[in-house]
Amino acid sequence: MKRLLLISNSTLFGSGYLDHCEDEIIDFLGKKIKTVVFIPYARPSGISHDEYTKKARERFLKLGYKLISVHEVENSKKLIEESEAIFIGGGNTFVLLDGLYANGLIEPIRKKVNSGTPYIGTSAGSNVACPTIMTTNDMPIKELKSFKALNLFPYQINPHYLDPDPSSTHQGETRETRIKEYLCFNNTSVIGLREGAMIRVEDDQITLKGSTGAKIFKKNIEPFEISSGDKITDL
Amino acid sequence: MKRLLLISNSTLFGSGYLDHCEDEIIDFLGKKIKTVVFIPYARPSGISHDEYTKKARERFLKLGYKLISVHEVENSKKLIEESEAIFIGGGNTFVLLDGLYANGLIEPIRKKVNSGTPYIGTSAGSNVACPTIMTTNDMPIKELKSFKALNLFPYQINPHYLDPDPSSTHQGETRETRIKEYLCFNNTSVIGLREGAMIRVEDDQITLKGSTGAKIFKKNIEPFEISSGDKITDL
Repeated sequence: MKRLLLISNSTLFGSGYLDHCEDEIIDFLGKKIKTVVFIPYARPSGISHDEYTKKARERFLKLGYKLISVHEVENSKKLIEESEAIFIGGGNTFVLLDGLYANGLIEPIRKKVNSGTPYIGTSAGSNVACPTIMTTNDMPIKELKSFKALNLFPYQINPHYLDPDPSSTHQGETRETRIKEYLCFNNTSVIGLREGAMIRVEDDQITLKGSTGAKIFKKNIEPFEISSGDKITDL
Repeated sequence: MKRLLLISNSTLFGSGYLDHCEDEIIDFLGKKIKTVVFIPYARPSGISHDEYTKKARERFLKLGYKLISVHEVENSKKLIEESEAIFIGGGNTFVLLDGLYANGLIEPIRKKVNSGTPYIGTSAGSNVACPTIMTTNDMPIKELKSFKALNLFPYQINPHYLDPDPSSTHQGETRETRIKEYLCFNNTSVIGLREGAMIRVEDDQITLKGSTGAKIFKKNIEPFEISSGDKITDL
């Protein structure tokens, strides 16, 4: 009965915040849900919880949903426990996971989502739905007691996945090289989720959505492409 | 009496391994040193300690120095304690720091370099010379007990620093945004060290070297440029 919508990025080039995934979010949440609980901990560009919540709230109101942030209430665990749906926004994955640990929300969110409450993540919010945050692109700007994350989804996601640019003169590792290094030391397969792509989980069925496809990285085999509409199984 | 050569990248586009910093390495090590102790833990692209050491050894032989790796001896602490010079190569910063902790080399290297033994780092090897590895670009593919690093250098380095590309359609955070996020949560200033740039420390004098300059990020002030030959003070 698990329901997840894991989005690579909140803003696609040339469009506004959540525009490219608007239809998918409405389809995913449906009409019965009235209020979405927001987790603003990832603080993109260091903005405050209030600023981030204002941005998300305005956008969700246009989609037809009220939004309340965990930082606006005294008892954030209770808010999670009573939530109709949960949305974790992007930003810095380390800061986000630190916030989830510091506020004791890992287990309450896991329990709630595992019992059927819909979960939406964008970017870092998709990363923390994975077993660990080891495939984030973010700088480790906060010490963490563990890289273990919500473990709602069985594979690792690399959000904002970027294909190698053959014309680049930059000698830093490509994203592909980084993910292959991950697989030298870890066994969980990685979904390189391009900007514009998203993953929808309904019960045990995992489907790639969006317009840009994804690249699958599995230990000891050549990476391969999957397309929108494809089911993801047995990685 | 501390002596450091902290290089952004080991290979510059269009040239071979360590070519662009060859003259600087020879000038830094001088003619009295015969053997350099190598630390291969960062394993770029997941290559083995043996493969990485072979690559570094061949290159250092051409520069006129023998090279011995810490993984080739039974007592790596003793090798560090008796070293004439230390070189830590690039790769994955988390894997590197994990190796330094696992082999108990943090304190031996600190002690040795603080007493005057020359230290060369490239990329991840420059990052671990900083107070922490919080300004790495690498994926956190290994759990670490701490992000604290060798603390041989007083500021944070971001190796392979990359200026924002105004023509990019990619919506992932620019390097500048990532470093500014670091400064929202931390106080140590950051040197964005472009590929082709390096830092030389002689006693307490810090000088920018190389051909490409660096960008300085300091809390609460606008980032600014420094050029080759500039002294770095009071960040």
